[in-house]
Amino acid sequence: MYLGSWLSRLSRGLSRPIGKTTQPVWGSLSRSLTLGAQRIPEFSSFVARTNTCGELRSSHLGQEVTLCGWIQYRRQNTFLVLRDCHGLVQIIIPQDESAASVKKILCEAPLESVVKVTGTVISRPPGQENPKMPTGEIEIRVKTAELLNACKKLPFEIKDFMKKTEALRLQYRYLDLRSFQMQYNLRLRSQMVMRMREYLCNLHGFVDVETPTLFKRTPGGAKEFLVPSREPGKFYSLPQSPQQFKQLLMVGGLDRYFQVARCYRDEGSRPDRQPEFTQIDIEMSFVDQTGIQRLIEGLLQYSWPDDKDPVEIPFPSMTFAEALATYGTDKPDIRFGMKKYLRKQDIAFIRDFATHHFSQEVLPVFLNAKRNWSSPFAKFIMEEERLELSRLMEIQEEDMVLLTAGKHEKACSLLGKLRMQCADLLEMRGVVLRDPALFSFLWVVDFPLFVTKEESPTELESAHHPFTAPNPSDIHLLYTEPEKVRGQHYDLVLNGSEIGGGSIRIHDAQLQRYILATLLKEDVKLLSHLLQALDYGAPPHGGIALGLDRLLCLVTGAPSIRDVIAFPKSYRGHDLMSSAPDSVPPEELKPYHIQVTWPADSEEENAAATPSKNLSS
Amino acid sequence: MYLGSWLSRLSRGLSRPIGKTTQPVWGSLSRSLTLGAQRIPEFSSFVARTNTCGELRSSHLGQEVTLCGWIQYRRQNTFLVLRDCHGLVQIIIPQDESAASVKKILCEAPLESVVKVTGTVISRPPGQENPKMPTGEIEIRVKTAELLNACKKLPFEIKDFMKKTEALRLQYRYLDLRSFQMQYNLRLRSQMVMRMREYLCNLHGFVDVETPTLFKRTPGGAKEFLVPSREPGKFYSLPQSPQQFKQLLMVGGLDRYFQVARCYRDEGSRPDRQPEFTQIDIEMSFVDQTGIQRLIEGLLQYSWPDDKDPVEIPFPSMTFAEALATYGTDKPDIRFGMKKYLRKQDIAFIRDFATHHFSQEVLPVFLNAKRNWSSPFAKFIMEEERLELSRLMEIQEEDMVLLTAGKHEKACSLLGKLRMQCADLLEMRGVVLRDPALFSFLWVVDFPLFVTKEESPTELESAHHPFTAPNPSDIHLLYTEPEKVRGQHYDLVLNGSEIGGGSIRIHDAQLQRYILATLLKEDVKLLSHLLQALDYGAPPHGGIALGLDRLLCLVTGAPSIRDVIAFPKSYRGHDLMSSAPDSVPPEELKPYHIQVTWPADSEEENAAATPSKNLSS
Repeated sequence: MYLGSWLSRLSRGLSRPIGKTTQPVWGSLSRSLTLGAQRIPEFSSFVARTNTCGELRSSHLGQEVTLCGWIQYRRQNTFLVLRDCHGLVQIIIPQDESAASVKKILCEAPLESVVKVTGTVISRPPGQENPKMPTGEIEIRVKTAELLNACKKLPFEIKDFMKKTEALRLQYRYLDLRSFQMQYNLRLRSQMVMRMREYLCNLHGFVDVETPTLFKRTPGGAKEFLVPSREPGKFYSLPQSPQQFKQLLMVGGLDRYFQVARCYRDEGSRPDRQPEFTQIDIEMSFVDQTGIQRLIEGLLQYSWPDDKDPVEIPFPSMTFAEALATYGTDKPDIRFGMKKYLRKQDIAFIRDFATHHFSQEVLPVFLNAKRNWSSPFAKFIMEEERLELSRLMEIQEEDMVLLTAGKHEKACSLLGKLRMQCADLLEMRGVVLRDPALFSFLWVVDFPLFVTKEESPTELESAHHPFTAPNPSDIHLLYTEPEKVRGQHYDLVLNGSEIGGGSIRIHDAQLQRYILATLLKEDVKLLSHLLQALDYGAPPHGGIALGLDRLLCLVTGAPSIRDVIAFPKSYRGHDLMSSAPDSVPPEELKPYHIQVTWPADSEEENAAATPSKNLSS
Repeated sequence: MYLGSWLSRLSRGLSRPIGKTTQPVWGSLSRSLTLGAQRIPEFSSFVARTNTCGELRSSHLGQEVTLCGWIQYRRQNTFLVLRDCHGLVQIIIPQDESAASVKKILCEAPLESVVKVTGTVISRPPGQENPKMPTGEIEIRVKTAELLNACKKLPFEIKDFMKKTEALRLQYRYLDLRSFQMQYNLRLRSQMVMRMREYLCNLHGFVDVETPTLFKRTPGGAKEFLVPSREPGKFYSLPQSPQQFKQLLMVGGLDRYFQVARCYRDEGSRPDRQPEFTQIDIEMSFVDQTGIQRLIEGLLQYSWPDDKDPVEIPFPSMTFAEALATYGTDKPDIRFGMKKYLRKQDIAFIRDFATHHFSQEVLPVFLNAKRNWSSPFAKFIMEEERLELSRLMEIQEEDMVLLTAGKHEKACSLLGKLRMQCADLLEMRGVVLRDPALFSFLWVVDFPLFVTKEESPTELESAHHPFTAPNPSDIHLLYTEPEKVRGQHYDLVLNGSEIGGGSIRIHDAQLQRYILATLLKEDVKLLSHLLQALDYGAPPHGGIALGLDRLLCLVTGAPSIRDVIAFPKSYRGHDLMSSAPDSVPPEELKPYHIQVTWPADSEEENAAATPSKNLSS
């Protein structure tokens, strides 16, 4: 019997003061996104404006400026607030007779209409400055105005505080993009990726190579979208990653490759999927695990937004076994240990949760002031065991310990889930365990190379993918106890989310063939080109891929990856704006030699297979 | 009758001295690709080597270095040449007894095996320096050697001068990539794109936004690949460009967008197609045609490789009408006028060509020393006309003029083709008209907005796409003589190839609806989201897309765009390395509710629809 356990550690200084969660506002956008020593870009080159709305300050006083933007707000026909993607500025509507046409334009244009104005930057009258507004010291005395495009009645108001359903936001994505938060998220994304490119290309000599997305299906590629070709029965496949190509580039002598790669995954009925996503894809020759880790730490430190606390490197590292045993997961959130403040009913909730989700008993043990155990379980455990447990767990006064019994991985996994449940419970009470301004990176290493198939426990499958090299010190076990072999795989975890993973790859064709054919029983024909390539002077190599959407989601604190993607698909994989996927007339399927196999219960649909607007999410 | 004509201009100083076509060699790669003021990247950070093979010079004398690379060449077991992607270096194989194991490794490893060596940089003995080799002053006295991977017998030798069929090169692309030329092309591509990003992001505040590639089919999108979804009868479409998304981003207030965008085009049976390609995709709000042109000129000047002559800006500009009338094409190669040296049989060839390809008569007119016309045609033309023509064409002594009659566009087009034929003829004789070191950019503007459909001349179709804004001074003609309306479209031409095109877009929903529904008879339902977006405060906007593959092809002087793409498809759209597209077992089609419609004559294939290796190109 294995006694899995973890510790609801009493507060012993494990938390740090809650960092300032920087909340940039309109008008601070270009400034907060402008990185360190770099010069500020010319945001108004080549266009009709002289300045952006958001950049105007007292230093511009007296200047004649031309601005283009959207009418955000208007009051009493005396002033309006003009918005562009850099911020807001106040415009004084002229009241004198000679400017009647300007007044008419500015007063009659509906909100969200696009106008161009020319005028002079002046001080606001004393006492009317708005310190909450970055441009709050100045306003614009307008001379000319031009209505560039009038706006019709909108389906909802463009204000950040308006609560909208996500379906509506996605249907009118082009309006939602006007919000400060979406502007911030997309601009931050662009800047972080640019900094990553500078680090990789300019500082470390990586080569940005584009690899095809119309490719051959990979073994076990059940999650790959198919693309019919014009040859009967022949299909391309949209790959889940450029894995094969990046390895082939190493064989081709391009020894430092990276790509901001579009990847595809058809997860079918799994909810909250994005059928296409982006990864920072990296591969190097002549590198080991430590080399990749130091590269990535430098990459993240270099590209980290200036409005967050700097990233400290190197990141801590933990083996898979240790992560499972101590955190009950392979992606621990190490921002917190645990705190007290659990109430009696919480314990009942936790026990219920364990029974319900894991069919597993959990026993709480409380330590009273005399360091005695208070638990219904206490009488079943010997004094000697209790002391040893207290020593191992470093149990102190007023700690609560949750104990469970069962198979190692299952028991650990349950306790790991309960740890997160406890964190949720405590945070509902206002105890902040997971500081959103704190970014805790962690390497998890030494994963098993294989796991047994759930449906057929005597067969092995790759824990990650079949190209991962075994740990050199475990290679002899490949031929005797392959399930004990550790792989040279590493995951990068940020605040409890996996944001990247990679490995040192197999560069020996014979070893790769043995693992694919003998251990994994895969059809090696589908990979014959890769196996052949390894035979022709493949260098030792390894790499990693970072999930860009997930990373940005954590950095911006967005509730969903849909908030860091310009045009995401809905929860069910639909584009709600254009209603894709859509029906296609049968004659357009003909060149591809395919026809639709209608399920028995949708005969009518068959008859009416014409494109239609489908807004269901 | 229209009298189209162009001029075989005698050499009147139209040519310039042939520029140095820089031919970089192995070892100069990192240097020739390192741009201007930027620091040289650390090519050996994070890995097992201390230096690259190609970078070693006399300044490294005495240093102990570790190198990793491929064995390129070995002579008499005394030295070998080691190669990495930065160049070649000579390694002295130790001959003394104590280094027997090192000698064994270095002498027994087959060529193209991967080795790691450690040793000291020493001078070559006097007289043995190799001035043709960038590392030719030094060599490496080796202390230790390790065989990292042995190479099996190769299908062909890795030497640039080896002539290989392209099919073989594509089948073993990972070997072909080891050639100097492919390394150069792919690294130059990476660097040019990086410089473009710096210009757009860092200097001019553009935002890199990724747009989806799984989208809804567009009206008339017959060239779009389909991607079956798991909903019966519903398909995504792989778009030919992010056109709709970039316009929607403008509506969303992201006023300066760019993306290095993957695009898809299924050109069916058209040969030499690449089903996926890359474009530098740009869109701006509040911009006019001149703004986009100045932006692109700056972009190309900034990103232009240092080993070429700098780009001079602004680029010349020519209207479509002028290009057609004077060069007989909308993409003139303006590097040359024309020269003499045509022989009698060439004239016969030209006339044959015209008759054969255009069913059109062409009449040559020669001007003799007395400036009289010598032509069978001379007697049909009146003295007055002849004088006027001579004046218009600025015909001079010993010029030859080709005359033809016919419909304007057809006649011009024929003469344009003949001009290129004459250039080919002259270059076969060694007269260099099209200097490969000369890059002549040209804007072509004022295209017609519509053209009549070839199959139904009373109907109109867009000359480029239906979102192009009409020239403001022609708008009144939209309602009376739409075929006379010029569009605000601009093409960028380089040395006779179109490398980019763009337009100011329509931002008025009503005008867009009129053009789509009334003039073009398109189904506006498929674009209802875009039309709606224009109604909700769309700013005036415009953009451009540059064809990256074509541009790189011209810059590197590559014979085909396949030489600037890491893993291109063959002439017929196949991946010859992995043999994609490939058959898919029927059970993998089931989740997508499709089945293959086998053509009548391929019943056997139907029976044997299992994946197979198909290497036909």
